[in-house]
Amino acid sequence: MTAAKLSPLAPASFPDLPEIAGVRFASAATGLKYKGRDDVMLAVLSPGTTIAGVFTRSATCSAAVLDCREKIGGIPDGAAAILVNAGNANAFTGHYGQTSVTRICEALGERLGIDPGRVFTASTGVIGEPLEHDRIIGTLDMLEAGLDGAHAGAAAKAIMTTDTFPKGAFARVEIAGKQVNIAGFAKGSGMIAPDMATMLAYVFTDASIAQPVLQEMLAKEANSSFNCITVDSDTSTSDTLLLCATGQAQNREISTSSSDEAKAFSASLHGVLLDLAQQIVRDGEGASKFVEVRVKAAATDTDARKVAMAIANSPLVKTAIAGEDPNWGRIVMAIGKSGAKADRDRLSIRFGDILVAEKGWVSPNYREEEAAHYMKQPELVIAVDLGLGEGEATVWTCDLTHGYIEINADYRS
Amino acid sequence: MTAAKLSPLAPASFPDLPEIAGVRFASAATGLKYKGRDDVMLAVLSPGTTIAGVFTRSATCSAAVLDCREKIGGIPDGAAAILVNAGNANAFTGHYGQTSVTRICEALGERLGIDPGRVFTASTGVIGEPLEHDRIIGTLDMLEAGLDGAHAGAAAKAIMTTDTFPKGAFARVEIAGKQVNIAGFAKGSGMIAPDMATMLAYVFTDASIAQPVLQEMLAKEANSSFNCITVDSDTSTSDTLLLCATGQAQNREISTSSSDEAKAFSASLHGVLLDLAQQIVRDGEGASKFVEVRVKAAATDTDARKVAMAIANSPLVKTAIAGEDPNWGRIVMAIGKSGAKADRDRLSIRFGDILVAEKGWVSPNYREEEAAHYMKQPELVIAVDLGLGEGEATVWTCDLTHGYIEINADYRS
Repeated sequence: MTAAKLSPLAPASFPDLPEIAGVRFASAATGLKYKGRDDVMLAVLSPGTTIAGVFTRSATCSAAVLDCREKIGGIPDGAAAILVNAGNANAFTGHYGQTSVTRICEALGERLGIDPGRVFTASTGVIGEPLEHDRIIGTLDMLEAGLDGAHAGAAAKAIMTTDTFPKGAFARVEIAGKQVNIAGFAKGSGMIAPDMATMLAYVFTDASIAQPVLQEMLAKEANSSFNCITVDSDTSTSDTLLLCATGQAQNREISTSSSDEAKAFSASLHGVLLDLAQQIVRDGEGASKFVEVRVKAAATDTDARKVAMAIANSPLVKTAIAGEDPNWGRIVMAIGKSGAKADRDRLSIRFGDILVAEKGWVSPNYREEEAAHYMKQPELVIAVDLGLGEGEATVWTCDLTHGYIEINADYRS
Repeated sequence: MTAAKLSPLAPASFPDLPEIAGVRFASAATGLKYKGRDDVMLAVLSPGTTIAGVFTRSATCSAAVLDCREKIGGIPDGAAAILVNAGNANAFTGHYGQTSVTRICEALGERLGIDPGRVFTASTGVIGEPLEHDRIIGTLDMLEAGLDGAHAGAAAKAIMTTDTFPKGAFARVEIAGKQVNIAGFAKGSGMIAPDMATMLAYVFTDASIAQPVLQEMLAKEANSSFNCITVDSDTSTSDTLLLCATGQAQNREISTSSSDEAKAFSASLHGVLLDLAQQIVRDGEGASKFVEVRVKAAATDTDARKVAMAIANSPLVKTAIAGEDPNWGRIVMAIGKSGAKADRDRLSIRFGDILVAEKGWVSPNYREEEAAHYMKQPELVIAVDLGLGEGEATVWTCDLTHGYIEINADYRS
């Protein structure tokens, strides 16, 4: 596989994540697939932490996803833990895969005195190869010894696969006079077309939030962040997004999603999730352009999303962007094939502020040189107004380059 | 744009199409976009010819598609004609686009004494640029002079765009003691994910078939041929498939689709359409592998098609094939994301005759070297058995290579 060269769209640095009271991290190297780097991360959560999760809807999801789905919503007694390995997805590994998950949860539970029903795992990497869970269990000593509230950055690095940079984000929000923190990290670069979740993302807060409310907020905010990105239209078998609330900020527990506190928290949470999701696009396999696709005035929100995703996933649109070609005819094609209601004579298309097409044809003021100049920027906005109704959607994607082919046509990348 | 290098999957030669009594062809050069080659073709059909058509369902379809759709099904009085230009799609060209179509139909009708309502046009090429219809009308002298029943091959060449070879196919079938011929040609290479039709295909027969029956047969057989191929999941604005029956074989007119004659003809028609459709895949932009995806034992035919198309359109599957990597985990991923019902423990996957995965895991007899050797062939079969029901589907696609990026990331290819 091609040596990972830092994405040209990477942020300047990993953010200085605030420590979240009640959360400690550690990472270690199993040597399972990668050499000379950590490939397993552990997060340990203080007793009483509520945990919400959303997962891939893939019909061939991984053993860890099946296991986590059953455990989410359980009673938050005692401590909890999250263990993630990179390099092997433990997906389509039959009953052996489930055995691996059970062994890891039991061994970790026993060592740290945590109910195995409160241990959540995830695996990311190659599909269909058996997970050597004993090598992961063999790192538990080192992981336990390394636990520290300040180790989130190393944990974020340990779960990377084809990622070229670790992805972190945080926010602070005041809830009824108490300051609470939200911090999280994510991994993902290819096989990105999340369906109710993302590749892998872990978000932590010291807020006190009842589990059903936490779950409701997470589902809602995942829908308008991770579910609005696509790199290559391929949905992973392992998509997992967990949100853990330790309660140590000692705010009065948020117990209904309609309260002002819940709304304030949810808005901050949205910011963190969207930041992480957009970093995944910025690290899309082979990406050289970060593209925002905004659709408005569709017949419905669903139609707007169909159009936005048809544009964002079209290989012809994505290759044109890679070639810095303002080939707006391909945007027209993608709108047409999306299945959404569209009227040629009512829609308009813009590249950034440049009006390209309107009233069924190229705009009279459109100058190709101007659009070609715009396309040279690393961050682009494609805006479509369908002129029909109130439906809106915004999604984010990247271009399709030789880099994507190089990364994925290599033997068993 | 990259000079067109012949696809490695091209047939040895263009077939020796039989002449169809009642059909004459001509081609000419407008100089609109291409230099030194013909880019417009004319077919003239004898009086009484019945014509059926299926077209793209794109909401932003071309002016010619809108015009053809209105004319199909009209009374087959007098002669008819088909005129096609390559290099400009006349799509998203507003009311000007409709004017161009009208002008061409009127000029051609006047010159050849054909009702403009019996003149069918199509345009293929760049979207959003005005069609200089006067340059097309300027070739009518030359086209009329060149009309000949033997000129189908030149006509097939004239409508090519990014195609690297012209595509033709034919069949002979006996209908109630009379031999009838079916011959046709098609173009298409990129923006191929037909939705009730294909890029452009024209099929002619000397059989006598009532128009409603012809339409019914064409819709049915298009569904199991052109609608089962995909190059890049992008649906064209110009997809047009016409079938013209001159009746000059003087068989008793086929007037119901349930007759033995209709079934025999429909089966032969299927063969011709499938041959043309598969040639389009063989000329897929950048293609180095021709891939058949067979899905069986799905819960329904619809589910089988979802799974087959999810595999055929997955960039990760297509790049693995380009890299000759038997990365069956990506097949599992595509099955999972398809939206079809699937059970990890019941499905099996084969590359050709090699059983790769079954019972929720890699097959005990699977040898990676054997599969890697198989992947080196230019023609591959991926077979999935979902183990659930009776649903079946087969689709054809090609791989995703650097060639696709080169062709499409070039400025305004």
